[in-house]
Amino acid sequence: MSQFAPKNPDFAARVRDSFARQRAMRLIGADIVRIEPGLCDIAVDFRPELTQQHEFFHGGIVGMIGDSAGGYAAFSLMPADASVLTVEYKINLLFPAQGSRLIAHGRVVKPGRTLTVCQIDVAAIRDGDERPCATLMQTLMTMTGLSDRPTT
Amino acid sequence: MSQFAPKNPDFAARVRDSFARQRAMRLIGADIVRIEPGLCDIAVDFRPELTQQHEFFHGGIVGMIGDSAGGYAAFSLMPADASVLTVEYKINLLFPAQGSRLIAHGRVVKPGRTLTVCQIDVAAIRDGDERPCATLMQTLMTMTGLSDRPTT
Amino acid sequence: MSQFAPKNPDFAARVRDSFARQRAMRLIGADIVRIEPGLCDIAVDFRPELTQQHEFFHGGIVGMIGDSAGGYAAFSLMPADASVLTVEYKINLLFPAQGSRLIAHGRVVKPGRTLTVCQIDVAAIRDGDERPCATLMQTLMTMTGLSDRPTT
Amino acid sequence: MSQFAPKNPDFAARVRDSFARQRAMRLIGADIVRIEPGLCDIAVDFRPELTQQHEFFHGGIVGMIGDSAGGYAAFSLMPADASVLTVEYKINLLFPAQGSRLIAHGRVVKPGRTLTVCQIDVAAIRDGDERPCATLMQTLMTMTGLSDRPTT
Repeated sequence: MSQFAPKNPDFAARVRDSFARQRAMRLIGADIVRIEPGLCDIAVDFRPELTQQHEFFHGGIVGMIGDSAGGYAAFSLMPADASVLTVEYKINLLFPAQGSRLIAHGRVVKPGRTLTVCQIDVAAIRDGDERPCATLMQTLMTMTGLSDRPTT
Repeated sequence: MSQFAPKNPDFAARVRDSFARQRAMRLIGADIVRIEPGLCDIAVDFRPELTQQHEFFHGGIVGMIGDSAGGYAAFSLMPADASVLTVEYKINLLFPAQGSRLIAHGRVVKPGRTLTVCQIDVAAIRDGDERPCATLMQTLMTMTGLSDRPTT
Repeated sequence: MSQFAPKNPDFAARVRDSFARQRAMRLIGADIVRIEPGLCDIAVDFRPELTQQHEFFHGGIVGMIGDSAGGYAAFSLMPADASVLTVEYKINLLFPAQGSRLIAHGRVVKPGRTLTVCQIDVAAIRDGDERPCATLMQTLMTMTGLSDRPTT
Repeated sequence: MSQFAPKNPDFAARVRDSFARQRAMRLIGADIVRIEPGLCDIAVDFRPELTQQHEFFHGGIVGMIGDSAGGYAAFSLMPADASVLTVEYKINLLFPAQGSRLIAHGRVVKPGRTLTVCQIDVAAIRDGDERPCATLMQTLMTMTGLSDRPTT
């Protein structure tokens, strides 16, 4: 259960709309599988196209869905006229990302008017169990007045 | 010019062979454009498939080629019977990755028998100039006796 | 409760002995207030000598006890002939460290033969409550055969 | 030579005044040995009180002067009515900090209205030479309208 109250009641639709416009997420086949205030899970099924040289999920895919899960967890708490920007993150790769599916659990640790800090755990699903493979600590920025859509 | 002497004289062929087996790199269209002892540059051309919601390169793509450029810079200094593993990295996203091409410059800061530290700068090429967009600090591990190929 | 089995049954005495020889910890007045397998808490009372320009605990003190709490949490799981080395850490300063006492809770997230990953939360005690002020993610290395004492 | 133009012509006096009020810096005996726009070096002489169990400089001292060198490098570019806050940093400890003196070289990589990114190298001086011992990447925040002095 989330401990945060969203500033934008339509946060879930807004997150899904933004995510749908991230073509890189579509390229790798990632989906949002949970969105609550301050929480976002993103998952991707195994495909050979997503692997590194040992045929596990590539670390880049792990980082990519981890970063996005934190980003959208933060975005879910932002006001309707704001956009989100990743300032930085740090990722520790704990175990090889070996499994039929990868899932990133992003959660806001500290929301803020300007900066938000998230913690993200990424797990590989193998034989039905979630096995931790990476952990991220991330800082995000609220860009007030910046549309989430491209300027034309 | 590189300041390091490679342990494996065939380091360049070995790096290119390993990279060629990273299907995730092929998916995003990344290439190794420079490999010297302790140095590796990886580049990727802009395609709409690689974008986030503002139509710039997705931060995940920035992280992915940054991580790989550091990984192969480190791998270039490792002995022929070793494999490389990313332990962790930290990325600061400095500017939006807006340009016709993205390039990551990885270089070894401190080689070690067990651990290697790399620094990676990622730039977007716009109007012919390289504009910095991210910087990474990364720790990698030499996996002695672990093949770079999948076990079967 | 700890979930780890220590390799060295005398881990607690060994941690306390090592800590007692860290003169920098004595300089700032830090103490180990809990040591269990994979867990270590370090606390320090407020003194004006430990402050920054706003008269809160200096961020350097926050980092110092955070790093040590993780280091000794990791060390508690290491064999008797090994020493511990901090490879790297990342700290997010969440709130000003304002309080009568500072406490760092270090815990091992992933123990390993060579590398151990820890997560550390630092809190300030104010009006009797622990208020989070920082969070760290840290990588440590087991130095097998390296004494924890100086070579003479 | 610095590449940045300071917003506050009195930046050097302001940095020194702020530093002088950091009692934790006095406790460890640290000094500012260079301050230019976007650049700050902080040094500390060896004393047994600053050591860890192997009688080298404690990693906490390395982190402390590294964090401060970056913080004041950033502060030197900030307007006269602003204060500086460390958001986060990541430190890689490359070599033991063994020497007669420790020096941290902080420099701004990317100044910004809200966030500034710094890179800091820490070296130990041994037999007259600077030997690298750590490298930090740091994010700082400009706190506009927040005095650098404590509120009373």
